[in-house]
Amino acid sequence: MTAPLDNITVLDLTHVLAGPFASMTMVDLGAKVIKVERPGAGDDTRAFPPFKNDKSAYFAALNHGKQSIALDLKAEQDRALFERLLARADVILENYRPGTMEKLGYGWDTLHARHPGLIYGAVSGFGHTGPDALRPAYDMVVQARGGVMSITGEKDREPVRVGASIGDIVAGMFMLQGVLAALYERERTGLGRKVDVGMLDGQLAILEHAVAITSVTGTPPGPTGARHPSITPFETFHASDGLFVIAAGNDVLFERLCDTLGLPLADDPRFATNPARCENARLLKRLIEAVTLDNTKAYWIETLEAAGVPTGPIQNVAEVMQDPQILARNMVVNVLDHAGQPAYTTAGCPIKLSGLEERPDRRPAPDLDGDRASILTWLEGGED
Amino acid sequence: MTAPLDNITVLDLTHVLAGPFASMTMVDLGAKVIKVERPGAGDDTRAFPPFKNDKSAYFAALNHGKQSIALDLKAEQDRALFERLLARADVILENYRPGTMEKLGYGWDTLHARHPGLIYGAVSGFGHTGPDALRPAYDMVVQARGGVMSITGEKDREPVRVGASIGDIVAGMFMLQGVLAALYERERTGLGRKVDVGMLDGQLAILEHAVAITSVTGTPPGPTGARHPSITPFETFHASDGLFVIAAGNDVLFERLCDTLGLPLADDPRFATNPARCENARLLKRLIEAVTLDNTKAYWIETLEAAGVPTGPIQNVAEVMQDPQILARNMVVNVLDHAGQPAYTTAGCPIKLSGLEERPDRRPAPDLDGDRASILTWLEGGED
Repeated sequence: MTAPLDNITVLDLTHVLAGPFASMTMVDLGAKVIKVERPGAGDDTRAFPPFKNDKSAYFAALNHGKQSIALDLKAEQDRALFERLLARADVILENYRPGTMEKLGYGWDTLHARHPGLIYGAVSGFGHTGPDALRPAYDMVVQARGGVMSITGEKDREPVRVGASIGDIVAGMFMLQGVLAALYERERTGLGRKVDVGMLDGQLAILEHAVAITSVTGTPPGPTGARHPSITPFETFHASDGLFVIAAGNDVLFERLCDTLGLPLADDPRFATNPARCENARLLKRLIEAVTLDNTKAYWIETLEAAGVPTGPIQNVAEVMQDPQILARNMVVNVLDHAGQPAYTTAGCPIKLSGLEERPDRRPAPDLDGDRASILTWLEGGED
Repeated sequence: MTAPLDNITVLDLTHVLAGPFASMTMVDLGAKVIKVERPGAGDDTRAFPPFKNDKSAYFAALNHGKQSIALDLKAEQDRALFERLLARADVILENYRPGTMEKLGYGWDTLHARHPGLIYGAVSGFGHTGPDALRPAYDMVVQARGGVMSITGEKDREPVRVGASIGDIVAGMFMLQGVLAALYERERTGLGRKVDVGMLDGQLAILEHAVAITSVTGTPPGPTGARHPSITPFETFHASDGLFVIAAGNDVLFERLCDTLGLPLADDPRFATNPARCENARLLKRLIEAVTLDNTKAYWIETLEAAGVPTGPIQNVAEVMQDPQILARNMVVNVLDHAGQPAYTTAGCPIKLSGLEERPDRRPAPDLDGDRASILTWLEGGED
């Protein structure tokens, strides 16, 4: 069985999250990823908690199936080796501050002249152009500056961070889209491209309704707690034993919801249309909860699902990792250790492809410089 | 100038957000996207607020540059036309409930047999397999069930929704990655693949540290307000005129921060390492704010940036859309109307490619069935 990126070699200079998340997906799609790390400590996330047997589970999850070689790109001998790797690579990925690769002599213009087919993916805080290109950034900075914090949290309370590091991850995903499109195009043109993604740009790109509202009304939306700002009812509700979610996204679903709850509201002018329901959202929530408080979350989720109303529990991450649907989709996988034994569990790949077997295990994450010998053998023309 | 997907034709049966977000990116990368809508109302989002000149700005943003044809896939004549389009398409996208395409006679097996090179991208609430495949879902349902709500918000308060619809958008982005990888592979094999992405799967896939922590400790993390759960200081701080962000992600940055604030804490055992700082995060926040409260956000952001400490404002969406860095990156673009005049502003494409000109304008979003004539001409072999 072949995978889409089976014949692709990636030279991966990225560290921490945005870049490694993208190259992890490339591993899942079949690519050979050679992680080039700085000698000594390697990727910062090797030191990130939590640890198991003195190794970072965080690093293991993001770097499973990659090979590692430690290279000092300022040292002559290591540069020679790096250049041999470059000559074999289809893709190079980096997340240095803009200009760093140029100082090393490996900027895009130089690489493109020497290796016209090489694709160059860069992810940085603010992108490689613009007045703030050189400023340092982390996920938290772009979540704040990029607007998502301003629409997340409760009204009249301090803004909160999105619990997932979407500043990094979304940027890594956009970069990978650019790299994959460039790989496709290269089949026709023979030429690579540079893909330059800024984390700040990526945040604005996912704000959809908030951008539309601001563009048309001039007034930016604020946070709305657990409610969708422009669909009602589309939020959390109290049952007798806690909160659950109802998402009745259109009039048909609202009518079904009313029928199921025994509430004669579908023809009530205060609630008959979505704009009216948004206008009267607080009243509607109380009328619905006056019914849902009478029974358990499990009862309502089962009853509403049977009626075809979108609903569901609010699960913590342990519950998600045991969710039967998640397990049936092979979305919890083992990362093996070098002895071939399961060492950690992590999220599977959500891209399910016909003709590609779902594997319950992932190859180990590399030790720092742990694949030097096999990479040298591969460069000599042998198998790795 | 060519774009990576210049020669690609996409038959896009998706509606609302996840699928249209993916096909919007394909437009930005050069593809011809033919949006197949149901006669009468078309895509639900044509009726989504906000409106300008009676047209939805939300629809316009997500569907700029696409063509529209209205087809009833149960009507014989429309099916014949649809099949002529299929024969010309490289990619088909759909986000129906699993089984719908099979009932129409256009399931993957049938299409793959007839058009071996066609790539089939599907995005659905729970994916096309597993016990819950047929259940309805919306963004809110998968944000809740998929775990991100459990780590977003304030401790001891009700969970909140992420303000951006990441349940939809992340799933659409994973689907596009699969489609692009399949397009690349098809150059070698001649064969398409089906790409099946479930929104629930996509949520687990972005939880990185939360999955690692749960996997190793057995205890799922909870929400931590505006703080990163395992890096300190990495949160919001009060200045004299409001909140701003400091993200000192390692010891070097923490030392710089202490120097800049005049705080002798870098060698203090309570704060010398990141684990110690996490342990004493509440105390550290107060010590830092005792200094930052003395001056304005603008002062601290400028001062800390000069010292190389990652920092930034918390911006609302109107402020983001005027941010000089965002504007310099062409991240706010105009969507034109059919008269060629700017009608809306929306987010630009964050995938910046060398050799591809950044355009300040986007072609209009289509009227429902507005491109029927030109699509027919194109099918006859003429230009569209």
